Amino acid sequence: MMKKTAKLFIISGPSGVGKSTVIHRALQNFTDFYFSVSATTRCARPGEKEGIDYFFIGKEEFEKGIQNQQFLEYTCYCENYYGTPRKAVEEHLNLGYNVLLDIEIEGASQVKQHMPDSVTVFIVPPDLQELERRLRSRGTDSEDKIAGRLARAKKEFEKAPDYDYLIINDNVENASQELTAIIQAEQFRYDCRKAVLEV
Amino acid sequence: MMKKTAKLFIISGPSGVGKSTVIHRALQNFTDFYFSVSATTRCARPGEKEGIDYFFIGKEEFEKGIQNQQFLEYTCYCENYYGTPRKAVEEHLNLGYNVLLDIEIEGASQVKQHMPDSVTVFIVPPDLQELERRLRSRGTDSEDKIAGRLARAKKEFEKAPDYDYLIINDNVENASQELTAIIQAEQFRYDCRKAVLEV
Repeated sequence: MMKKTAKLFIISGPSGVGKSTVIHRALQNFTDFYFSVSATTRCARPGEKEGIDYFFIGKEEFEKGIQNQQFLEYTCYCENYYGTPRKAVEEHLNLGYNVLLDIEIEGASQVKQHMPDSVTVFIVPPDLQELERRLRSRGTDSEDKIAGRLARAKKEFEKAPDYDYLIINDNVENASQELTAIIQAEQFRYDCRKAVLEV
Repeated sequence: MMKKTAKLFIISGPSGVGKSTVIHRALQNFTDFYFSVSATTRCARPGEKEGIDYFFIGKEEFEKGIQNQQFLEYTCYCENYYGTPRKAVEEHLNLGYNVLLDIEIEGASQVKQHMPDSVTVFIVPPDLQELERRLRSRGTDSEDKIAGRLARAKKEFEKAPDYDYLIINDNVENASQELTAIIQAEQFRYDCRKAVLEV
């Protein structure tokens, strides 16, 4: 049947933009995806599950992993490491699975540099006021932390031009439909499909 | 509300592949499209309507149009001219409408050269045997003409790598859904949407 080339999708966006919901709804439309689970040195929050939300590992182990190039990208944020385990990503791509990474902007730029064929999507809120409202309504962050996240989001917006696609999450239904269309269309690119013409 | 940049979509594919059906089904999902009508010097076939299927004009008028650069692209095929009137395309793009051209490979390459931001889609049949079957079932072409169209299709397949996207029309429902996803996704590209971040 039709052969195709697997693709790496990188999704970024400011904290509080509703990224996870959008991603998980969109991925329900696909069966051939591997959603990469990051490793981190921060402690698990209530409800977070090992291997589902993160791989929770020690600082020493993480730093050994960095030395051994076991991370596709990594970053340090609020004194904790976050990184994408390289092996699982590469293995799934080789098996023909598309892979999706939900990672920070710095990490995204590291991966795009090494894998220029990867597709990058930036999710933004309709505006900063709405982001502030959403961060506040989560009720998990202090005022200081919210101010910090907003300042960070403002800086992150400046990096949007480095991304291939831009999704404005004014409505989770629309936004996940948009991500679905992007993922589909990218698989219809000539490079992904050329094998079929080589019959 | 959200400002966006209009895009030019160029669709090509061998005669008999079912392009028109796929395009018209896909365009039903959009309200902001202008489907470009070509001009030609060939005679109208039974059922073809002026201004809907083609603008039917004389050879002299066409050649004057070429001289005055009134065509975005043109080609000569079976001793008849076919061309895309430039003015309607440019005016609709300026008004914010997306524009779709259903044109031959040579014309597509001319337009892409002048408008590198345009999006090109190549529609192919699942295989040449299926194309032959479809051409035969139309019952409009002689055996000679069918052989000619098949030889041409084979040559055209070689140009597929010049296109951004490849759609395999094994099923008109799937193919038009694929074209829909491509048209949607292209409008989510950063370049198309950046205006929203400039607020």
